[in-house]
Amino acid sequence: MKRLYDMDLSGNCYKVRLLLGFLDLAYEKLPVDLTRGDNRTSSFLALNPRGEVPVLIDNDTVIWDSSAILVYLATNAADKRWYPDDALIRARIVQWMAVAGHEIQYGLAAARAVKLFGRTGDLPQLQEIGRRALALLDEQLHKTHWLAGTDPTIADIACYPYVRCAEDGGISLAPYTNIQHWFERLEALPGYRPMADTA
Amino acid sequence: MKRLYDMDLSGNCYKVRLLLGFLDLAYEKLPVDLTRGDNRTSSFLALNPRGEVPVLIDNDTVIWDSSAILVYLATNAADKRWYPDDALIRARIVQWMAVAGHEIQYGLAAARAVKLFGRTGDLPQLQEIGRRALALLDEQLHKTHWLAGTDPTIADIACYPYVRCAEDGGISLAPYTNIQHWFERLEALPGYRPMADTA
Repeated sequence: MKRLYDMDLSGNCYKVRLLLGFLDLAYEKLPVDLTRGDNRTSSFLALNPRGEVPVLIDNDTVIWDSSAILVYLATNAADKRWYPDDALIRARIVQWMAVAGHEIQYGLAAARAVKLFGRTGDLPQLQEIGRRALALLDEQLHKTHWLAGTDPTIADIACYPYVRCAEDGGISLAPYTNIQHWFERLEALPGYRPMADTA
Repeated sequence: MKRLYDMDLSGNCYKVRLLLGFLDLAYEKLPVDLTRGDNRTSSFLALNPRGEVPVLIDNDTVIWDSSAILVYLATNAADKRWYPDDALIRARIVQWMAVAGHEIQYGLAAARAVKLFGRTGDLPQLQEIGRRALALLDEQLHKTHWLAGTDPTIADIACYPYVRCAEDGGISLAPYTNIQHWFERLEALPGYRPMADTA
């Protein structure tokens, strides 16, 4: 039995919901209300000392951090294509997961948090970091259909949510045509569901 | 033939030098002088569009991002213990690599960059984020000898450099006794070399 500590509007939670959908795995959602401080209770901090969502509970196993959950689910999946057992493809996946954790998180996601949730931050600077992320992805997606090469992997899943909602942070996606075609490919995969439908 | 675009004082480069040492792999170092803008030349940006060190060249394969290089080298190694083929251990490794990329990078490494390289930043805030990283690690290392469990992995390598030089950023390591014992264990492994010796 899988349970996911989740917040509807969190792109990091959506990464996990996306992969669970692609793998057609059933799970129970446990909503965490950050505005109410659900993530600062001692019982939640015992699960994740970072006090963040998502957290996956798989029977008795507790995993926090969206990248770690993606690697865990994809390694356990019968369908190996999401995290193949090849050193170079894995390196490419980790490379793009690092971009998801740095430029995308501290640029696109942070700009969105300022505009959508009133978080404090230097919006133009965050948007600039976000555009750097978009340029990196667009350049790669000019060369390959998917971030790590010829097939979709958890790298695509890790990058997609905050890129898809970049405009929430006031960043236009219009200049990035390769990214737009990548959206179309990803959204055509069996099991795909838009963010609002998984919430 | 392995070549590493490297900067002596970079903890992210030291992660790669550490693993190359543990795996007893020969490599050539190509020093990159950031103060001279070596990382902003078009030839360097063609290797790594992010404009950062480290970059590993393994014959014709180019890999940027320290986490990606660690996963690549450890997956290719004969000795599988650095990145074992087990979903849960891998998830734990990725979890701690995420802490290395977030709290450690944006806390400990950033505070060090302010104090050592005169980078701009809110030092007390960076130190506070850094202490959060140290508390996370110390709590884990109270429970297990290594970050991902009973054996050393690339999670330990990813976290060690900027934790080891936390005091460069004005953060005392004295309260973290579990971290200090972990230093001793890691520094006793065959192939270990301190940062200055690999520079």
